[in-house]
Amino acid sequence: MNTKISKTTSDNLKKEIANLPTDLILIIIDHNISSLYSKVLNLQEIDGKKVIVWKAPDGEKVKNIKEYESCVEYFLDKGIHRKTHLIAFGGGATSDFAGFVAATLLRGIKWSVIPTTLLAMVDASIGGKVAINSKEVKNLIGAFHKPEHIWMNYKFLETLPPDEMKSGKGEILKYALLEKTIHDLVQSDSPMEEIINACGTFKLNLTEEDFQETGKRKILNLGHTFGHALEKIYNLSHGVAVLWGMAVMDIIYNNSKNLKTIKELKSKLNIEEEKSPWIKRDFPMDKIIELVKKDKKMVSNFDLEVIIVHEIGKPEIKTVDLETLAKDVSKVQDELKNLSL
Amino acid sequence: MNTKISKTTSDNLKKEIANLPTDLILIIIDHNISSLYSKVLNLQEIDGKKVIVWKAPDGEKVKNIKEYESCVEYFLDKGIHRKTHLIAFGGGATSDFAGFVAATLLRGIKWSVIPTTLLAMVDASIGGKVAINSKEVKNLIGAFHKPEHIWMNYKFLETLPPDEMKSGKGEILKYALLEKTIHDLVQSDSPMEEIINACGTFKLNLTEEDFQETGKRKILNLGHTFGHALEKIYNLSHGVAVLWGMAVMDIIYNNSKNLKTIKELKSKLNIEEEKSPWIKRDFPMDKIIELVKKDKKMVSNFDLEVIIVHEIGKPEIKTVDLETLAKDVSKVQDELKNLSL
Repeated sequence: MNTKISKTTSDNLKKEIANLPTDLILIIIDHNISSLYSKVLNLQEIDGKKVIVWKAPDGEKVKNIKEYESCVEYFLDKGIHRKTHLIAFGGGATSDFAGFVAATLLRGIKWSVIPTTLLAMVDASIGGKVAINSKEVKNLIGAFHKPEHIWMNYKFLETLPPDEMKSGKGEILKYALLEKTIHDLVQSDSPMEEIINACGTFKLNLTEEDFQETGKRKILNLGHTFGHALEKIYNLSHGVAVLWGMAVMDIIYNNSKNLKTIKELKSKLNIEEEKSPWIKRDFPMDKIIELVKKDKKMVSNFDLEVIIVHEIGKPEIKTVDLETLAKDVSKVQDELKNLSL
Repeated sequence: MNTKISKTTSDNLKKEIANLPTDLILIIIDHNISSLYSKVLNLQEIDGKKVIVWKAPDGEKVKNIKEYESCVEYFLDKGIHRKTHLIAFGGGATSDFAGFVAATLLRGIKWSVIPTTLLAMVDASIGGKVAINSKEVKNLIGAFHKPEHIWMNYKFLETLPPDEMKSGKGEILKYALLEKTIHDLVQSDSPMEEIINACGTFKLNLTEEDFQETGKRKILNLGHTFGHALEKIYNLSHGVAVLWGMAVMDIIYNNSKNLKTIKELKSKLNIEEEKSPWIKRDFPMDKIIELVKKDKKMVSNFDLEVIIVHEIGKPEIKTVDLETLAKDVSKVQDELKNLSL
């Protein structure tokens, strides 16, 4: 079955859940979201259903094996069955984690998402990539497990911290490079809801077409090869790290042709220009290689896949060996040293 | 892609692995099997490939989250990539565990099995049901993830302890009730290799047809609803517990019509007649219900699915609520008290 994305309101959420064909609902809710919305929405009381709630530590902190064990043992101890439906209520970390729980409880139960951050609305909640982190690297333990429903309620964005808005905008900018219509929506100052909807639909279609990422879906990794490493090295938010990752790849393999567009799009999305985290210093290629080797983009002991956008809407999946990549980076060190966006 | 079952020899195993289209092999090997066969087979040295070996604690002891964490962190720390191929080398517990590792490492890598027990050859290694145990109940944490190859080498049965042979025969007896041709093979004293091959092919076809167990595949759970509970309560081997589970279900819902056949098949498979673990006492229905409630056969908060074989080769999937099941058991307590097979 394919995922259904639908717009909803705070009032309607309870009805949507009541309509699910099960008598048992599990909810994994982000701790912050629980403080802000639990009382108002009162999802723990749904007519005709037993509801079991597990509160997740805020954000990325939940994505490890210890919390995974604690969560699954909690649900299993309460007694669950095959037709149980799990709901992820929070940002991308919550849905990554909850989706992995749903993928592995009783070998897979159905699940749905109520995304509460911009990043989750345009990216993390869509496409069924679910995961927790290993000790050193993000998302190395996971599965592909599609949610049934994604219920979009833009209201949640009103309480979202500015840094998290910015992170979501980083991923929107990625879509704007991958797809001309999204680029044009951003350039023409379209309403945020319309942009979010276009990003979600674009990702949903692509991931339905290539669910297990054997081909075309890989273009969504634009900016992520270096992005994941930069996120770790400089403690950046995910979307911001992806943004730098895209820019660096453009400098190395596209003669910096898209930098101007990236700056324009950033400005349209109200992200201020800023200096790169490594400004005036060497781009940290050694550290990056160390981390990339342990990431998921490697396709042999030596080769990895990177995404390059030659012009808006025309991405290429390129296989490159690590040694060549390091050489290619060294050729553009000067430009990298002075990068601002 | 579908799973390929192929007969192999100790000499050929190395060649089979060398032919896999990857430069990185992970091996999860049962500790006992490692002691018996590591030096002889020398699988840790394969031309043109890097090989990383993780030794699993014997049997069921490996199937928990702690060992899972230790194993995945070990492999991730060595550095692996998307095209890595994992090999499970051991009995059913080893392949259940290894398959779950393969299903979740980098969101799923390819894997193959070298089954070394009779139970693994006829059942556990086939069909892609992979899992670890929760604190209280078996196989509650898992996934569906098909192996690429199952390499059958009957040589391993020569060093298999008698109790494990008996456990495997319990599952063979299950197939003999589900499928007339297997029943006839056993009744006509066919060679064990032929019986193993017929069981494997039967399960493989059924699981390819209904991979995620939404319908027909459920018949393979014959004997397992009570079996899993009996296994836990009396510390029985898996196949033996399934055998008692089948007999009990036949007494409750089939007027004991198959008991004679079960006894005949047992005798053909050289399993001695023995008394039930609860002989002369009440069948432990309260404890069973407590365990069944936490198992995977429940389809709502009250209902579960059981399998009944009306005549050889004609199984039925029946939904029954727990209360009714307990009443139906109480009606046949006398017969259950005196059960020997």
